[in-house]
Amino acid sequence: MTAAVAMLSSCSPKAAQHNEVSQEIPDTPFPYTVTEETKNRPMSAASRRNFQYDGINPHENEFFTQFKYTKLEGFDYNNDDGTITRRDPSQILFENGKYYMWYTKRHTQVPPRGAKKCTDVIPSTDWDLADIWYATSEDGFKWDEQGKAVARPEKPKTGHRSLATPDILKWKGKYYLYYQAFDEPSGTKGDYCCISMASSDSPDGPWKRTDREVIPVGEKGAWDQYAVQDPHPLIRDGKLFIYYKSAFNRPDHLWVAQGLVTADNPEGPFKRHPLNPVTNSSHETCFFPFRDGVATISIFDGNEFNTVQWAKDGVNFEVMSVLSIPPKAIGQFSPDQFTDTKNGRGITWGLCHYINVNHGWEKYCTHLMRFDCDLNTEVHDKWMKSTREKYKEEVYYARGLSKHQRKMANQRTKKLQEEYKKTMNK
Amino acid sequence: MTAAVAMLSSCSPKAAQHNEVSQEIPDTPFPYTVTEETKNRPMSAASRRNFQYDGINPHENEFFTQFKYTKLEGFDYNNDDGTITRRDPSQILFENGKYYMWYTKRHTQVPPRGAKKCTDVIPSTDWDLADIWYATSEDGFKWDEQGKAVARPEKPKTGHRSLATPDILKWKGKYYLYYQAFDEPSGTKGDYCCISMASSDSPDGPWKRTDREVIPVGEKGAWDQYAVQDPHPLIRDGKLFIYYKSAFNRPDHLWVAQGLVTADNPEGPFKRHPLNPVTNSSHETCFFPFRDGVATISIFDGNEFNTVQWAKDGVNFEVMSVLSIPPKAIGQFSPDQFTDTKNGRGITWGLCHYINVNHGWEKYCTHLMRFDCDLNTEVHDKWMKSTREKYKEEVYYARGLSKHQRKMANQRTKKLQEEYKKTMNK
Repeated sequence: MTAAVAMLSSCSPKAAQHNEVSQEIPDTPFPYTVTEETKNRPMSAASRRNFQYDGINPHENEFFTQFKYTKLEGFDYNNDDGTITRRDPSQILFENGKYYMWYTKRHTQVPPRGAKKCTDVIPSTDWDLADIWYATSEDGFKWDEQGKAVARPEKPKTGHRSLATPDILKWKGKYYLYYQAFDEPSGTKGDYCCISMASSDSPDGPWKRTDREVIPVGEKGAWDQYAVQDPHPLIRDGKLFIYYKSAFNRPDHLWVAQGLVTADNPEGPFKRHPLNPVTNSSHETCFFPFRDGVATISIFDGNEFNTVQWAKDGVNFEVMSVLSIPPKAIGQFSPDQFTDTKNGRGITWGLCHYINVNHGWEKYCTHLMRFDCDLNTEVHDKWMKSTREKYKEEVYYARGLSKHQRKMANQRTKKLQEEYKKTMNK
Repeated sequence: MTAAVAMLSSCSPKAAQHNEVSQEIPDTPFPYTVTEETKNRPMSAASRRNFQYDGINPHENEFFTQFKYTKLEGFDYNNDDGTITRRDPSQILFENGKYYMWYTKRHTQVPPRGAKKCTDVIPSTDWDLADIWYATSEDGFKWDEQGKAVARPEKPKTGHRSLATPDILKWKGKYYLYYQAFDEPSGTKGDYCCISMASSDSPDGPWKRTDREVIPVGEKGAWDQYAVQDPHPLIRDGKLFIYYKSAFNRPDHLWVAQGLVTADNPEGPFKRHPLNPVTNSSHETCFFPFRDGVATISIFDGNEFNTVQWAKDGVNFEVMSVLSIPPKAIGQFSPDQFTDTKNGRGITWGLCHYINVNHGWEKYCTHLMRFDCDLNTEVHDKWMKSTREKYKEEVYYARGLSKHQRKMANQRTKKLQEEYKKTMNK
């Protein structure tokens, strides 16, 4: 496998709009056996595109993977009554011979009740009235919750309402947790927050909160003017890169994307990249060093959800593969994340979360879950590289028509039948 | 919504490989509210790409849809014992006030036993020893099996071993069924077959078989030299277009793709398009008129599985959207398929199939199933246009690690722990 890089679609938009596909007509048919020379023949736009991927088959495409999921052992959710949530896992560190992971934990008297009904003890959203907890694991499957890492501060300090969606940075032997800091219940005006930070000499703490906006929201009118969320750090070229999320273009068609800030040290100041946002999709932030660039997994929001993207410069991302059922809210184990590597190996596993609605939306909570994959240049797991998925009928039928959709389908049939009857009566 | 067309990735491959993204740096941040002028500012590759889609949000992208699935009423599968299979539905016609659909039906004494164990009455594969059957429906949900449409001929006529994977064409008031015609059990040397055809004055038959290769396999050495499969007709510019599938580049990395043949009438002769294959992915063939071009849904195989693609010329396809859990073996209801439209409306539903392994792979069979979607320019179903899918835990956990994968994951952890211990002992 070479380090050459390919992407999903590479001809100019004009070509698709006007079919200005100027190419000669080949004398011979496309061959059964594809060789190096095949690349040079005239061919269709899609055939040509396939040679621009990492391999002509997903098995050879280092940017393609399936995901496998495993239930975690060791976490109690109070019988899924909605009072305990664990969500938005950080990246995973391997320290002191074991794995460490930080996450949003909400443990409240009642489940979330929305911004209008919330109080000082009743949460608005699933990540309201939360703190940052941590857990360790010997094997990555069974986790031991160690306790609170960073508790929200007293009023009116930054983040006094809730701390959520943490991520971890290891920098020059010290540890830094970045997290969303809420001063009002999420949902009051929006999901408005800045990013704050705490530091420690050890992954076990104690953590010293800064109690300040370490990454503030963008300037007035900017895409990220109301919120900076889901920080995701890595080290590159001696600098600290933190990717983050914001949502904009409300109340029209929501656009969710990621931006990049850089700094010379973990306390900042952080400089926004002028070409932000650097993605056009994805509800959560997941970036990791891959080869000599940065890879990201895009999910849940946007035209390019369910894709892996890559940018040599960490800024101008291209689509490298399409995914099926990717994990939500990824916190990956990326051993090269903070080593300033020039050749990132990528990832084979991490944690993510899913919404548990076993007792209905009135009592929903969020569970942490493990995923495994092969987005790693040193691993070649052919079962992770097959696009050929056979889903059981339950998977399909879990995605059924709503009553309204069934009604609309029936109306379209009735219209056809009425038109037919009219023709018959003529 | 304009007829302007966008695609998944449009900068040059060089840009991704070398980051030759030559653009000025903007003076102001990307705005919160996106306007027409936003398009003209300098921006990241991904941000720019988003303006090339049908809309900046999937809700506005006519090429994006979710799929909903419904179990069909009316078909018996002998308690899923593997002796009855219905698969590979044709496109759906609305004729005589009701829907018509043709499909592969296998009804054998025993389930498939592979090419080595098959006999004249024991099938090799799920589509061996099959015939073309048909069913009608008043509502598209409940189907009445009407009987055999085209039975396989006696030896040694073309297709005597099995007829499978039919599709329907309506042309100047007559009806044509195209199907895979097998002269040997599938799997003997490969899944080798040609495409044959039968015609009728009525969708209810009787059908007159041609008993000949109507679309033969490609010339020696060509990508489609061994098989032409899964024919899928439409009418365009007064001509008959039939898209078909072949698989090539064995025994190296399998490449599955679609080609196009055209003809002036249903009997042929058919002319291969010189730029075949016109796709680079997809295990099955599904093409339909959309706006002034042709759309296709790509699934199951290839770098661009799980995408919708479109070509103004029906030949040079570009990726227009990414999909989640799309249907397999689509037979769509496309009312514009045979009208030689210049403005195809697209589709809202069709049939597909899934593999039923309720009693294990020794007794597997295939069931027909309905899907609904919104790939239709006249329909705007916002629930079909949301990328925000929350899967239940069962969907994730149905995709679990194999024992081998779990072992590999544990080995990687052990390696880390051993390295850590070595460091400690130094």
